[in-house]
Amino acid sequence: MKSSLIEARKILKRLKFRDGFVVAVVRDFKTKEVLMVAVQNEEAVLKTLTTGMMHYWSRSRQKLWLKGEQSGHLQRVREVRVDCDGDALLFDVDQVGAACHEGYWSCFYRKLKNGELVTVLKRKFRPDEVYGRSGK
Amino acid sequence: MKSSLIEARKILKRLKFRDGFVVAVVRDFKTKEVLMVAVQNEEAVLKTLTTGMMHYWSRSRQKLWLKGEQSGHLQRVREVRVDCDGDALLFDVDQVGAACHEGYWSCFYRKLKNGELVTVLKRKFRPDEVYGRSGK
Repeated sequence: MKSSLIEARKILKRLKFRDGFVVAVVRDFKTKEVLMVAVQNEEAVLKTLTTGMMHYWSRSRQKLWLKGEQSGHLQRVREVRVDCDGDALLFDVDQVGAACHEGYWSCFYRKLKNGELVTVLKRKFRPDEVYGRSGK
Repeated sequence: MKSSLIEARKILKRLKFRDGFVVAVVRDFKTKEVLMVAVQNEEAVLKTLTTGMMHYWSRSRQKLWLKGEQSGHLQRVREVRVDCDGDALLFDVDQVGAACHEGYWSCFYRKLKNGELVTVLKRKFRPDEVYGRSGK
């Protein structure tokens, strides 16, 4: 799904950027599984809507981040929902490879059990083979 | 799902509170539909885990917020997942009433279409009948 620049700007006006950010929740379009959560500034939302590929703001690297720019694990946008306050977006995407830089399909691969975090998903890839020693 | 205070404190240590907060994504336990997104400070996570009821930090009211304290639309925790960075939590809950203070089952009741936000869910209740004139 792609928007024109005019459409994307119109949507931007409906959003509330808190301290410059909205929260992006990203799901697998087919299964609706939650893949990841990240933040977007205005530029990241604009880029996402106009290119149809997920872009975020990387707080650790302090820069715009095209998801998959290094790994090839791009996320193509299929559907977008906006919450009541306009400060959170729900994106349904076609995920290439896997969403998590740790090698899992979803970043939510750990479940809470008796005060421990238990891994409940299987790795799809080895991070060092995709990223080298660091990065997303 | 309830944790003991010792278990909850152990989990807290595994989380990364950015500017004091983690992001909480909340789903309907049965359908896995995303109901809402909010933030939690340490106290809100601790209260949620030890009581089994969703608590958030309200940025608008600058206070701890038991979801449903005014509306009765409580959220009972069934399962918790943690993301790779430890700065986002995914809660599956049993939702009483509806999640959104606008009267919808989910806060994500609007879909983006041609630069417009189109309402795609039906109202479950009239907000003024539940909240009076304001509040969540």
